[in-house]
Amino acid sequence: MDQPHVATGDTAAEAGNPDKTPRTERGRRTLRKLLDAAAIEFGERGFHDASISAITRRAGTALGSFYTYFDSKDEIFQALVRYMSEQLRDHVTPLVQAAPDEISAERIGLESFLGFVREHKEIYRIIDEAEFVDYASYRRHYETTVARVRQRLEDGAARGEIRADVGEVHAWAIGGMNVFLGMRYGLWDADADIAEIARIANDLLANGLKKQD
Amino acid sequence: MDQPHVATGDTAAEAGNPDKTPRTERGRRTLRKLLDAAAIEFGERGFHDASISAITRRAGTALGSFYTYFDSKDEIFQALVRYMSEQLRDHVTPLVQAAPDEISAERIGLESFLGFVREHKEIYRIIDEAEFVDYASYRRHYETTVARVRQRLEDGAARGEIRADVGEVHAWAIGGMNVFLGMRYGLWDADADIAEIARIANDLLANGLKKQD
Repeated sequence: MDQPHVATGDTAAEAGNPDKTPRTERGRRTLRKLLDAAAIEFGERGFHDASISAITRRAGTALGSFYTYFDSKDEIFQALVRYMSEQLRDHVTPLVQAAPDEISAERIGLESFLGFVREHKEIYRIIDEAEFVDYASYRRHYETTVARVRQRLEDGAARGEIRADVGEVHAWAIGGMNVFLGMRYGLWDADADIAEIARIANDLLANGLKKQD
Repeated sequence: MDQPHVATGDTAAEAGNPDKTPRTERGRRTLRKLLDAAAIEFGERGFHDASISAITRRAGTALGSFYTYFDSKDEIFQALVRYMSEQLRDHVTPLVQAAPDEISAERIGLESFLGFVREHKEIYRIIDEAEFVDYASYRRHYETTVARVRQRLEDGAARGEIRADVGEVHAWAIGGMNVFLGMRYGLWDADADIAEIARIANDLLANGLKKQD
């Protein structure tokens, strides 16, 4: 697929074909409405059964607006993966950055991720379907998410808050831990106490399985 | 979907419709050939493009043999998810059981999983596609895999080898860690030293992120 023709927030300028990037606030609002509608449509019906006309109907926009921003269903799907990835980042990042130290940051990151999943249950289906519809977007979502974890770990190590040898393997391990806990306790289980789940997982991450005494 | 009409090894008797369970060694061999062929066909072409005739062609069996064991493409796909899940279990379990203690068992489990992924790269595509084709199988694969991790943890804790408070959350965290490391270093990266990846991840799991001094 081509580059996506859309982005959100600050990344609009970098994200793709400048011809299709909205230049007005109204345009950005329409684009966001289309992406929010696409999240529901793809989340409920899956890529193959989703339709452009249903997306515009859900968005309350004319069919023409769709083609102002996207050329195809593939293209809005690709943009949606990036949009959800960015929404997740924008939800988690400020909370993580306000944490007093790196270990707390990982707990807060997981707890806020679990909260995001509760509110956006479609995220699993959409990101996971990208594995079949647009592998490059799928892989990029995880690579960018894990790169953020790695950066946090390395910054925490540089500040002396955690072990000094953290790197890529640790970041992928934490990414996987969070995604599975999100599936189990965010997606499948609406009642789990997410603060408590995050506390237990963070205690494992901080202290490991070894007996402490 | 109905219950699967197939299983492997010891579980044959429990796995589904007894009418279709092979009663002879020759029948079990044919069934296995069909499942191995299905792994390649679904792995290469995906569920929607895969066909029953291509599976029997790859297996070198008559089309009639397929219908001896399965009623449909959905049914062999469901059986395949269980078959791959069991193959993985059968590959990992003896190695893990021979480990001297629970922390080593987790290292050996991860290393043998990474080795399995290298040899069976189609496992990710097949299990992940089950999310869209047969959600119950998808969920069961992870629930049974994580239940085995949990049992190992609880047994290790009972033997006093690891912290006493291990449970379900720890098991899902470890499951996710392993699945992501398998994707990154087993599936995407053919050159990574999997023993070293397992060692690094196991050191994190054993000791955590906190500075040890």
